[in-house]
Amino acid sequence: MASSTERRELGLSIIGLGTQYPPFSLPTSVLDALSKKFYPDSPAMQKVLSINRYTGIDQRSSIGTPDHPLVNGPTAPTITEINKIFMSDGVPLAVSAARQALAEARVEPTQITHMVSTTCTNSANPGYDHFVARDLGLSRSVEKVLLHGIGCSGGLAALRTAANLCLGHAMRGLPARILVVALEISTTLVRSELDSINADQETRIGIALFSDCAGALVLSNGLGTADEALAPPVYELLGWEHHTIPDTESDLGFDVDPLGWKVVLTPRVPTLTQGVLEPAYKALLDALPRPPPETYRTAADYDWAMHPGGATILTGAEKALRITPEHMRASYDTYINHGNSSSATIISVLNRLRSKEMDAMTPDSRGPRDHVVGCAFGPGISVEMCMLRRNLAASSSGLQTPPETESEPSEAGAPASENGDDQASELDEATGTNATGGNKPVIECSGGDTTGNGERLETAKQADAFISEALESVELD
Amino acid sequence: MASSTERRELGLSIIGLGTQYPPFSLPTSVLDALSKKFYPDSPAMQKVLSINRYTGIDQRSSIGTPDHPLVNGPTAPTITEINKIFMSDGVPLAVSAARQALAEARVEPTQITHMVSTTCTNSANPGYDHFVARDLGLSRSVEKVLLHGIGCSGGLAALRTAANLCLGHAMRGLPARILVVALEISTTLVRSELDSINADQETRIGIALFSDCAGALVLSNGLGTADEALAPPVYELLGWEHHTIPDTESDLGFDVDPLGWKVVLTPRVPTLTQGVLEPAYKALLDALPRPPPETYRTAADYDWAMHPGGATILTGAEKALRITPEHMRASYDTYINHGNSSSATIISVLNRLRSKEMDAMTPDSRGPRDHVVGCAFGPGISVEMCMLRRNLAASSSGLQTPPETESEPSEAGAPASENGDDQASELDEATGTNATGGNKPVIECSGGDTTGNGERLETAKQADAFISEALESVELD
Repeated sequence: MASSTERRELGLSIIGLGTQYPPFSLPTSVLDALSKKFYPDSPAMQKVLSINRYTGIDQRSSIGTPDHPLVNGPTAPTITEINKIFMSDGVPLAVSAARQALAEARVEPTQITHMVSTTCTNSANPGYDHFVARDLGLSRSVEKVLLHGIGCSGGLAALRTAANLCLGHAMRGLPARILVVALEISTTLVRSELDSINADQETRIGIALFSDCAGALVLSNGLGTADEALAPPVYELLGWEHHTIPDTESDLGFDVDPLGWKVVLTPRVPTLTQGVLEPAYKALLDALPRPPPETYRTAADYDWAMHPGGATILTGAEKALRITPEHMRASYDTYINHGNSSSATIISVLNRLRSKEMDAMTPDSRGPRDHVVGCAFGPGISVEMCMLRRNLAASSSGLQTPPETESEPSEAGAPASENGDDQASELDEATGTNATGGNKPVIECSGGDTTGNGERLETAKQADAFISEALESVELD
Repeated sequence: MASSTERRELGLSIIGLGTQYPPFSLPTSVLDALSKKFYPDSPAMQKVLSINRYTGIDQRSSIGTPDHPLVNGPTAPTITEINKIFMSDGVPLAVSAARQALAEARVEPTQITHMVSTTCTNSANPGYDHFVARDLGLSRSVEKVLLHGIGCSGGLAALRTAANLCLGHAMRGLPARILVVALEISTTLVRSELDSINADQETRIGIALFSDCAGALVLSNGLGTADEALAPPVYELLGWEHHTIPDTESDLGFDVDPLGWKVVLTPRVPTLTQGVLEPAYKALLDALPRPPPETYRTAADYDWAMHPGGATILTGAEKALRITPEHMRASYDTYINHGNSSSATIISVLNRLRSKEMDAMTPDSRGPRDHVVGCAFGPGISVEMCMLRRNLAASSSGLQTPPETESEPSEAGAPASENGDDQASELDEATGTNATGGNKPVIECSGGDTTGNGERLETAKQADAFISEALESVELD
């Protein structure tokens, strides 16, 4: 067994995680209805609506129903109106996710030393992180960093930035408890995107993929007062790798617009991201302070927390890394049940991965692996990768017996038990509650919600061929 | 004399600085002309135009002339159009400022390990920092951090974040050379603000204050290969202090809008910022790893690099800290000659402070002090403060003789000599050149450009009474 020193090269641990989806789950039919209500039929609209039925996503989590006034006006809402909803309906989600992470970490809000946040769906000054910090009761001198301009890679970029800040505090002999928060409210852009599809006759598929979510985690550098009962690691952070792919600035983006942000996504993206996975994975291994155990010889020996940007991202990873959907089971599960919530998704995936339900779906029933590779892509195109070591002992080997096991937070009575993704997603949707309000009506899920995840993974794989073909045959934005 | 160990508690040094203003300097009369051309006369417009004549600013630096098509359309430009100009005309300024800083630091672009950038006048994905990094030829794996949501405090917040990252690398025994970049293009918002003044009859004074600028610096943690000829420090970073003032979120902001961003500035701001200076200064002293030398007993014993948010910010600092305009000579000089360029201004002030011209204007002709307090305010309201130790030896005591003295970069032939703020600002304006283009016409400066800075400081102080009165009598946004 590795010694404590060997196990914690950088001394960085994620000691709490939280995910907060909004109360509504939109089936694919929502786009058909909105399109029919506000726009004439057209070839581009037909194509987008067809793709929408085969993304592999069952429902996208959203702060509102299709009847929300914001998306039912005579014109698309402006960036000002979108900002107001982000603050009124989004910030409480981030507060809730953060409270879950703090509770699991056993860290008081006043103990938080830094806050690293990210979003690509808001551009307010003061930033949304200010209001999350205020509502949580963080110290007025907490060092806040709000990352911008990095889209879907924001979750892992925030973790990497937090890791560097953690080490900076370690250098000064100071404890660091860094709250990482990612919040994206994307579904408010549906009318703007439908406008563009109608006016420009472009096959813009962002509205078929994007959803709303808040994710949070607490990163610790392990230093602290002797009497502090620090929670055991959920994941240790062993290292990271980050770079941009040259000459790809125009392939993936999120352009600011009077009506919010417009998705930029060219047909080259799946090929570009697939091509960079293997070299990035090798660079990650080189960047680790210590090589992984000998049992980890190929990519397939790890579990993978891949950002589910779309079905083609996941199937591309299967080809490039010779892994299976079961290696990325939490990515598929999150994608199918909630859609792509941009920067917040990867935190949701990491949270979901440690559930018993996911542990029952490993490749060849081999069981979960403790080494997990996290990966996400963002505009640039940038690739973010990190190596994590999951604390399996807490839930399975019995080496540690924390008061609440991370695979069963629903039994611990902490806030995580109310809203965490650790429970079956169906339960989230059935209760239809969140921190912001009471029992709002739950939108009917699309058909097939009784299908097991295994079958869903297969469906998603079949859908991929269609989407690949669609992407390859059109020039997007 | 302090030992090397004593002098460099954190081991963090700014080893290069660069400022790049755009080629045009707008006199106050520009607002009168634009107002007359596009808007009817009204009480609010009259009031703003009156305040505009007494801000104490002689001219505001701008990427365009008043004839620029962007501000001469039938309606105000959209955030999309503003984004395009930011990228086409702003990014080259940031590249130029960064090249100056790199040249002085004697650091190759490929040696840069991190890049910490900030802006509140852009919201693109990928962020503008991606394009600056690409144009500079930074490594594809440089760790980029783009700060958002912090407005005018962004320059010092970026320096603080860079400092933490520097220490993180020191913890791992790795050299850190962090490029800090601040870029703001504010003058493109003039029509949007004039729209609001006309429509809402609000006394919105942002357009009378804000200007365009790029600032850059290189921060080092001092680690490196033995054969690396590291530039001597320009400033050592000794410590910092940061906090937010409770219940002031609505007093200072920059709200995202289809036409860019709308300034939020209530009459409470000067009082709030003045009130927090003394406690923040005391907290800064407490946060230092080692107390300043005994010769530093009061605030007046330091030099001050105060963000010139407006005349009332500077005069408020005089009252709160019992300091004189001469303590903040570089702040006044930058304000008078260029206006308030938001986050980029503080880097310009720090650059200007080390010029011979500024050293000739110290309080009671006492000469420059090596300890310098930097200070800026931003939305939140947040206050950022840092303690710097200027390397006076390089330029005056002869203890060090670097190839290029930081007070005379114009003689060194480095890029800094072309565009640096170290030269008299008049020269910048007279040459009218920048990295983006050739000899664009220079807009005539307003009257009084032969007045010495001493007289200008006095004029600015007189104008303050008027502005204070104007601010106190109106309810702004």
